[in-house]
Amino acid sequence: MNLPGEVTIVEVGPRDGLQNEPAPIPTPLKLAFIEKLAASGLRQIEATSFVHPKAIPQLADAVEVARRLPATGSVTYSALVPNQRGLERALEVGIRRIAVFTAASESFTRKNIQMTIEESLATFAPVVRSAIEGGVSVRGYVSTAFVCPYEGDVPRARVREVALRLLDMGVDQVAISDTIGAASPKDVHDTVGELLSAISSEKIALHFHDTYGTALANVVAGLQLGITTFDSSAGGLGGCPYAPGASGNLATEDLVYLLDRMGIQTGVELHRIFEASCLMAEALGRRLPSRQWQRLKGALE
Amino acid sequence: MNLPGEVTIVEVGPRDGLQNEPAPIPTPLKLAFIEKLAASGLRQIEATSFVHPKAIPQLADAVEVARRLPATGSVTYSALVPNQRGLERALEVGIRRIAVFTAASESFTRKNIQMTIEESLATFAPVVRSAIEGGVSVRGYVSTAFVCPYEGDVPRARVREVALRLLDMGVDQVAISDTIGAASPKDVHDTVGELLSAISSEKIALHFHDTYGTALANVVAGLQLGITTFDSSAGGLGGCPYAPGASGNLATEDLVYLLDRMGIQTGVELHRIFEASCLMAEALGRRLPSRQWQRLKGALE
Repeated sequence: MNLPGEVTIVEVGPRDGLQNEPAPIPTPLKLAFIEKLAASGLRQIEATSFVHPKAIPQLADAVEVARRLPATGSVTYSALVPNQRGLERALEVGIRRIAVFTAASESFTRKNIQMTIEESLATFAPVVRSAIEGGVSVRGYVSTAFVCPYEGDVPRARVREVALRLLDMGVDQVAISDTIGAASPKDVHDTVGELLSAISSEKIALHFHDTYGTALANVVAGLQLGITTFDSSAGGLGGCPYAPGASGNLATEDLVYLLDRMGIQTGVELHRIFEASCLMAEALGRRLPSRQWQRLKGALE
Repeated sequence: MNLPGEVTIVEVGPRDGLQNEPAPIPTPLKLAFIEKLAASGLRQIEATSFVHPKAIPQLADAVEVARRLPATGSVTYSALVPNQRGLERALEVGIRRIAVFTAASESFTRKNIQMTIEESLATFAPVVRSAIEGGVSVRGYVSTAFVCPYEGDVPRARVREVALRLLDMGVDQVAISDTIGAASPKDVHDTVGELLSAISSEKIALHFHDTYGTALANVVAGLQLGITTFDSSAGGLGGCPYAPGASGNLATEDLVYLLDRMGIQTGVELHRIFEASCLMAEALGRRLPSRQWQRLKGALE
C-alpha cells in the first residue's frame, strides 16, 4: 500500500467545531480547550473566526481568544476571515495565518455567504493580497467540493477552477471540503485526482465531515493519492445541533488512531486530544460523535 | 479506482448483532426484524446460533426462529453451529447453510471457546463433513484475524494457515474477522493480500466491527483487492452493552450507503434496512451506532 510517512493535521475544532453549537462556550473554557490541543503535538490549530459576531455569535469573542492564545513556538494558529474588516481585526491581535472561504457550488455559496462564487472571489482577492503584503499566510476553503445539498454532485472541473483561482490569488493551500460529509472514496479519488493534474499535492488539504461514516475511508483515498494534510475536529465536534443525529467533522481522535495504526507519523498524542475533547463534552453536556472518544469515555465509565 | 461492480452483503444482525444484548429480544420481534431484512433485497442472512442456550441465552430460541423464518426464494438463511449436536438441531429445523468458527489467535480461542485452535479445528472437521454430506453448505469464521485483545497484532501467516485448514475441511468461504474492530486498511491490505496468494477472492468474506470507526475504510481496502463479500449488521447492532461507548458491527446502512455512492450494486434497499433497525432500536430502547441510522432517525425527530 503506497502511503506517505508523515501527515499534518489541521485542528479545526475551536472554529468549525464550535461555530454550530447552540450555546456559546465561555472564552476561558475555549482557551483551556485550545491549550490542551496545543499541548498534544498539533502544529496547526484554527482558533476562531473574524466573521461578524451577529452571523456567528458562538465566535463573537474572536478578538479575546486571539489575544490570549497560549504562546507556543510550535503551533501556528489561524483564523477565518470574511473580508477586509475581518483581516484588520485579525492583524490587530497578531494572527499570522488566515483562511478565506468560497465553494464549488453556486447555490451553496449564495445560501452560505449571499454571493455568487465570482463575487466571493472578487471579495477575497484584495484580502488575500493585503494579508500576504502584511506577511500573513493564507489558506482557502473550497466548500461543497464533492456534493452540494442543493445541487447534488459537483463537477470536478468546477472544483479545479475554483481551487486554481484561489491559488492564483496567493493562498498557499486549498482545503477541499466535503461540507455535508456525503463523499465516498471514489469521489475523492476522482476529484482529487483531477486536482493533482494541475496542483501539487502539498498545496491540497482535505477537509471531511463524518455524516455518513465515510470520513476515514476518504482520508485513506487521499493518502493513496499522496495528500498529506487533513483537517479534523477534536471529538468530532461540529455536528448541527438542530439535526440530532447529524455527525460533525471528522474526529481528530479517529484520524490519529487510523494514522498511528498505519504507521504514519503525526506527532499528535491521541490521549491529549481526548482530554481536550472531554472538556468540551462536559461544557456541552453531551457525548461526542468520535468513535475513539466514545470508546475511551466508555472505558472510564 | 479499481472496484468490483457488485457486492454480496451477509447480514449478521439477528445473530452477531443480538447475541450481546443484555435483554433477549422476544422471538416474534426477532422474526419481524428478519422479515424486514429479507424484504430489503439481502440474499444472505445469518439468522441465529445453535450454541448452547446457557452460553448465549439471547439466542436460546434458535429452534423456534429457524422454524418460523419467513419463506422466500431469494434469501439463504444461515446459523452458527458449535458442534455435532448443534448441527443436528439446525438440520432438524431445515437450516441449509451453517457457519463454524475458530480464530487466528490462541489466547482468544481459549477464552472464547475454551479450546486451542487445533482442538477447535478437530471439533469442527466432522461437523463440516456431516453438513456437506447432508447437502448443507458451510462458512468458516476466522476471528481476531488482525488484532487480538490479548496478543496484539496477529501474524498473517497464522491467519492464512487457519483459513486454509478451514477451506481444506470443506467450508466454501472464510469470513476473515476483525473481532475488536481495531484493524486499519493497511492491515487489511497486508493480511488479505497474503490470503489472496493462496485463496481465490470469492472464497474470502470480510467481517468488520466499527469500534474505531475504521470499518468502511477497511471495506474499501478489501474492495480494492477484489473482495466482493462483506458482513454487516443492521443499525450497527453488536456493541458490547457493558462497554457503553463500544460500537458494534459495521452497520449495514453505512455499508449500503458507501457502496451505492461508489456505484457498486448490492440489490439492497437502504430504507428497508433502516426500518428493520428501527424495530430493534425501539425494542432495545436506545440509539444505534450506525451513522446513517442516526442521520435518518434525526431527520424524523
